[in-house]
Amino acid sequence: MGRRVRIRRVGLIVNPNRPAAVTLGRRLLAVLKRRNVAVVADEKVAPRLGAVVAVPRQEIFRRSDGLIVLGGGGTLLSIVPFANDRPVPVLGINVGRLGFLSDTPPEEALKAVDALLHGRYETEARLMLRAEVVRSGRRLSVHQVLNDVVINKSVLARIIELEAKVDGKHLCTYKGDGLIVATPTGSTAYSLSAGGPIVEPAVGVMLLSPICPHTLTNRPMVLDDGAHVEVVLRSNEDVSVTLDGHEGVALRNGDVVRVRRSANRIVLARVSGRMYFDVLRSKLHWGAGVGERGGRSA
Amino acid sequence: MGRRVRIRRVGLIVNPNRPAAVTLGRRLLAVLKRRNVAVVADEKVAPRLGAVVAVPRQEIFRRSDGLIVLGGGGTLLSIVPFANDRPVPVLGINVGRLGFLSDTPPEEALKAVDALLHGRYETEARLMLRAEVVRSGRRLSVHQVLNDVVINKSVLARIIELEAKVDGKHLCTYKGDGLIVATPTGSTAYSLSAGGPIVEPAVGVMLLSPICPHTLTNRPMVLDDGAHVEVVLRSNEDVSVTLDGHEGVALRNGDVVRVRRSANRIVLARVSGRMYFDVLRSKLHWGAGVGERGGRSA
Amino acid sequence: MGRRVRIRRVGLIVNPNRPAAVTLGRRLLAVLKRRNVAVVADEKVAPRLGAVVAVPRQEIFRRSDGLIVLGGGGTLLSIVPFANDRPVPVLGINVGRLGFLSDTPPEEALKAVDALLHGRYETEARLMLRAEVVRSGRRLSVHQVLNDVVINKSVLARIIELEAKVDGKHLCTYKGDGLIVATPTGSTAYSLSAGGPIVEPAVGVMLLSPICPHTLTNRPMVLDDGAHVEVVLRSNEDVSVTLDGHEGVALRNGDVVRVRRSANRIVLARVSGRMYFDVLRSKLHWGAGVGERGGRSA
Amino acid sequence: MGRRVRIRRVGLIVNPNRPAAVTLGRRLLAVLKRRNVAVVADEKVAPRLGAVVAVPRQEIFRRSDGLIVLGGGGTLLSIVPFANDRPVPVLGINVGRLGFLSDTPPEEALKAVDALLHGRYETEARLMLRAEVVRSGRRLSVHQVLNDVVINKSVLARIIELEAKVDGKHLCTYKGDGLIVATPTGSTAYSLSAGGPIVEPAVGVMLLSPICPHTLTNRPMVLDDGAHVEVVLRSNEDVSVTLDGHEGVALRNGDVVRVRRSANRIVLARVSGRMYFDVLRSKLHWGAGVGERGGRSA
Repeated sequence: MGRRVRIRRVGLIVNPNRPAAVTLGRRLLAVLKRRNVAVVADEKVAPRLGAVVAVPRQEIFRRSDGLIVLGGGGTLLSIVPFANDRPVPVLGINVGRLGFLSDTPPEEALKAVDALLHGRYETEARLMLRAEVVRSGRRLSVHQVLNDVVINKSVLARIIELEAKVDGKHLCTYKGDGLIVATPTGSTAYSLSAGGPIVEPAVGVMLLSPICPHTLTNRPMVLDDGAHVEVVLRSNEDVSVTLDGHEGVALRNGDVVRVRRSANRIVLARVSGRMYFDVLRSKLHWGAGVGERGGRSA
Repeated sequence: MGRRVRIRRVGLIVNPNRPAAVTLGRRLLAVLKRRNVAVVADEKVAPRLGAVVAVPRQEIFRRSDGLIVLGGGGTLLSIVPFANDRPVPVLGINVGRLGFLSDTPPEEALKAVDALLHGRYETEARLMLRAEVVRSGRRLSVHQVLNDVVINKSVLARIIELEAKVDGKHLCTYKGDGLIVATPTGSTAYSLSAGGPIVEPAVGVMLLSPICPHTLTNRPMVLDDGAHVEVVLRSNEDVSVTLDGHEGVALRNGDVVRVRRSANRIVLARVSGRMYFDVLRSKLHWGAGVGERGGRSA
Repeated sequence: MGRRVRIRRVGLIVNPNRPAAVTLGRRLLAVLKRRNVAVVADEKVAPRLGAVVAVPRQEIFRRSDGLIVLGGGGTLLSIVPFANDRPVPVLGINVGRLGFLSDTPPEEALKAVDALLHGRYETEARLMLRAEVVRSGRRLSVHQVLNDVVINKSVLARIIELEAKVDGKHLCTYKGDGLIVATPTGSTAYSLSAGGPIVEPAVGVMLLSPICPHTLTNRPMVLDDGAHVEVVLRSNEDVSVTLDGHEGVALRNGDVVRVRRSANRIVLARVSGRMYFDVLRSKLHWGAGVGERGGRSA
Repeated sequence: MGRRVRIRRVGLIVNPNRPAAVTLGRRLLAVLKRRNVAVVADEKVAPRLGAVVAVPRQEIFRRSDGLIVLGGGGTLLSIVPFANDRPVPVLGINVGRLGFLSDTPPEEALKAVDALLHGRYETEARLMLRAEVVRSGRRLSVHQVLNDVVINKSVLARIIELEAKVDGKHLCTYKGDGLIVATPTGSTAYSLSAGGPIVEPAVGVMLLSPICPHTLTNRPMVLDDGAHVEVVLRSNEDVSVTLDGHEGVALRNGDVVRVRRSANRIVLARVSGRMYFDVLRSKLHWGAGVGERGGRSA
């Protein structure tokens, strides 16, 4: 159990494109009011929830003691850039399929909200990454991600070269479609597709997973989460960096993407009793499905 | 539809260790007799089936026009060494889990046997391999397999080196735990575990799949089924060759394993209407199970 | 040795962006004239080669008995769409790194051209694929490729779903970044990056290799080269199909990409004595590089 | 730089089967005596080195302030079981190929020994694992490893089932040839062959890498090094556990192998200035070797 903050103000983030999420949001709003909890809601959806204070998404961490996210993993990722150093517990309620980040099903929503308000939950502080894009020594942009920083060529581009340095030391030059720098949380996202290992969420590491490397000799690499990773684009192709699958920044030859651990963490509130391994087996069919082997029988 | 041989004599092969197989064998024996079909049975199980002519397993292909195999994949593999150039259709009825080689479930057994007797089945002629073990120029043994020829070090042995030649030309020297030479049928057996591709059963190829190669630079290789593969052991470690997961032959440094297509084929009788791809999806969860990815939502 | 056509007319294809290729082209032109061989050249580079008949690239197969390609693999791929059913031998002379398709180094160019003119070469007829893009039952375009047909999502797009059918039968629905349909020649191109096996060039197969599949349960698949493959896009994302890494066609939800063996083959003229396996070991460091393992020493 | 212990007593461990190691051992012994350093030597090789105090290998950590290992990785692994909680720096001098654990070549041996004696070296404290084999609640044996604990079936055995628990929670049941529990140091040993990621040596994790899993759905897994891993054999096959590739213990159905971080660490002394990434690129051809891809050229 992590430390518990008494929750007086709840922030509601709701996927506006999923009617089921909006409906559930209205019900939870009523419940919270009855419990005399102050509620603010993401301004994108607030008008559809009813009488609730609307705040811009970027302020929602500052103005809440606890967050309730109604949607899927993507809805939760949408607030990641704004997470700050306050340990605001985030309760993810999925309205679609069971997710790694939102493991509470809608039918358990009321019970989960009660648990959140009464401090009956486990916390999981998830490591995030901070990425900077630097051009000719000038910082173009800064980002915060929970899953991954992905450098990827466009479909028609040729193989690109990405020079990777770790703590200032040359690691290698990747040739292929691109490179993923992932957190443990991101190990079940794009990195998984690229052949990366699965990392328990609490482990203090970063993953470097090449995307379609055009050599036989590249493997995913596990680095300490204290590492300073620097990736330099060494090609004139059409390449961009995406942050948690979003917000593409077009890169030029020589541009540098610097990635290190963020000073902030997302604090997930776990009320379901579901364990990470359970979700793993359920979502990935982990270990299921068997071929045919075992030699001749008598 | 392949050509159909009128079936006057049926051979029964039954896994003696599975009571359900023996019970089903008795029922089918009664049915076949009622239909006035001559039956012979593998001598290992014949006494437990009732009044039936017992023949050694190695003669069963010669003395039947059609074979019924009750068991799993292993039971079918047990008759592979004796398959000859007569196109005897083999009907596999699984008494356990659905299999690639025996895709008829027990509850469809009677219908399937009727279909077999009346020629209402598809045939699939499956490529087999012929392997020779040669020491100092002398042939030690000859084998016929449906899945694979596997050269494998023992648990405590160090990494072994296996020099591979294709049609007399040096391919490479594999370093690792061993090497699999597999048929398309064998592509869903051990080769799958070693990371090999899945090959449609009717494709005319052989697979070379290294087992735990201790280099980053080895990949499974697809060769024409007309290839003559030669693997020379270049280590003094404890190594053996196994044939369809059975019959280990201990190898010495310098021993040669020669593998090429067998002149014989196993002819599977397909009555179930189940397609290869269906079994693939069902047994391997092919394509099922999805991680979490797709970026942020609105 | 394949059948030999007496070469009276040579076609020259030269990468105009590589000065070394243009210089070598001029030298070879002089040599060919001295040998009284008629020469035509790709119109893109003809003016820079000197006095030579310029023809559009799409006519060069029709107007030559033999082709000399000066450049790398990409230069050879550029004429693939125009290869027809005449068995015109193609001699690839690389001016950069050793290639799978152009395995003659520049210093052996004169000897190689002599060998070509005198019929002293091996031929390798390489399988090509024919792809059609179909929208609402109407054929949008037809293509011919030597390496691969690649269906790929754009960088910012989410995971796409691609329903694959083989000979009209449902194989599976791929979820991920995309899918590669490759020839054996293409097995060392993009499919290799995606984790596909290496296929000897002469084997009669097609490969289906998923790109960053977002399931744990997909493997590359080897199909007979007689297979009719149909891939249906089942997503509203930004997706395109590329042909030999070129010529992107934007796809819409429901569009169908049909792929089957082309009736034409590219006939490579091999004069170097270099074998495919040699190039494989040299280019891919096949089998090289060893980690550290083998237990404790005495 | 780690803390430095003044080295008054040096322990020499020499691979007795490599004459070059023995010769170098004699030279270093003379040098050390001239420097007035007390020397003890592993009793297996002491008589061949000259006048030196012979001690059993298991005492060498206790009776030295610094160790010099002449041989390869295997020689260094041979003293791992005896490493205790004293931070004795270990200098590995390879007499064969460059190694991850012994990165000083023989020609730099004298300089390296001087550096060791004068405290001019970096230290790398490498995580080790402690493994127990438990049968019917009784502990059969305890082991300490630097690379890996490997549970592996014998060549002729069928697929085995291994139930894995992490901190008492069910992770999954592995089906296949076996399972590797590896340290970061071991990530370039057997785990690499089994498809595992490469882990920087200083990262605080354990790897679980399945060996030839007979499912499509298993991936290597990265756990925190504080994890308590428990693997239960659930098969009646011929299975054994090996420790750093050595010392096989035969397992029975129901036997439990418990693995957790050892309280001890091996302290490697680094004098060469060679970085881990350099060895990685050099030994594994990391990133080298490129196929052919990139589309058509102009």
